Amino acid sequence: MECVIRQATREDCDPLMGLMREIAEFHHLLDEVTINSQVLKTDGFGEDPFFKCILAELPAEKGGKAARPIGFALYFFGYSVLHGRIVFLESLYVASEFRGKGIGVKLLGKVAEIALAAGCKEVRFVAMEWNSPAKDFYLRLGAKDMTQSHQQWHSMELSGEALQRLAQKGRRSPGGALGSSSGQAQQP
Amino acid sequence: MECVIRQATREDCDPLMGLMREIAEFHHLLDEVTINSQVLKTDGFGEDPFFKCILAELPAEKGGKAARPIGFALYFFGYSVLHGRIVFLESLYVASEFRGKGIGVKLLGKVAEIALAAGCKEVRFVAMEWNSPAKDFYLRLGAKDMTQSHQQWHSMELSGEALQRLAQKGRRSPGGALGSSSGQAQQP
Repeated sequence: MECVIRQATREDCDPLMGLMREIAEFHHLLDEVTINSQVLKTDGFGEDPFFKCILAELPAEKGGKAARPIGFALYFFGYSVLHGRIVFLESLYVASEFRGKGIGVKLLGKVAEIALAAGCKEVRFVAMEWNSPAKDFYLRLGAKDMTQSHQQWHSMELSGEALQRLAQKGRRSPGGALGSSSGQAQQP
Repeated sequence: MECVIRQATREDCDPLMGLMREIAEFHHLLDEVTINSQVLKTDGFGEDPFFKCILAELPAEKGGKAARPIGFALYFFGYSVLHGRIVFLESLYVASEFRGKGIGVKLLGKVAEIALAAGCKEVRFVAMEWNSPAKDFYLRLGAKDMTQSHQQWHSMELSGEALQRLAQKGRRSPGGALGSSSGQAQQP
């Protein structure tokens, strides 16, 4: 099977959204999806994109199906206070019927190539404990599990009401006196 | 004590780098620091910045010390395939002698405010298991520990030789046949 790895464009957002919904379904999180292909177009292919994305595309068949994406890697650039530039790989996905053909490795390889070309020293991502095929896939390729390391990283998230409440505190005294707040500032 | 929260500028990179080295020291990772203030200037304040940063600044004293940063939050924008726009908070730090005065909450509040203003639904970050003051600080503010959740997130990292090897695979057949690769493509 031939397959092309290329940068996604605005025109890929419909099939891309389809693949993203497959991921959400796989994680039993379909109810949690709050984006759609129009949002993807705005967020990924506007003036100040929030992500970058490469696709694995199956070429068009002669007189048959049109070319179509069967996998993708969605990533963004970021920073480490220790090592500088990094890539954060948010999601790597290959449609189930095309797994076991090395497409995931090729996508990840392209992300690694893009990362190094941009001067990044590491690619960070998250894997779920229960999804051992994915975790094993990454470990086989030499990834370090920072949650299992002696540093024992915990992934954390602020959202919903907690985020709103915090933003209120941010707004209340922009540049004002801070001594009166009851919160603790600790080394994270 | 009065304290101002403001966006960092290129001119703040020297004291900012000083605070970053304090973090590295706190984590016993000073040997691992590969960046310096010149790198920070290039990476954060050039045309295509890899991070954004806000500072907590102690104002100048009359006839005394000049204004100086005593804490910071370094973050970047990213994306979730479920929820769209996110902020990734790489580091939140307040110098030890200024803790317990709510400066960390103010910095985090400002990040929350910036996140919501940009249409982000969540702020993601990492805390270390052994650094319970930091972890408790976030949990008190309503953060969810995704590593302790039923999804059991593992933070992972590809770097060094493993990243180089992968990039080689990416380069070897750009857009070429993928069926011959021995790797497995799995749902991460």
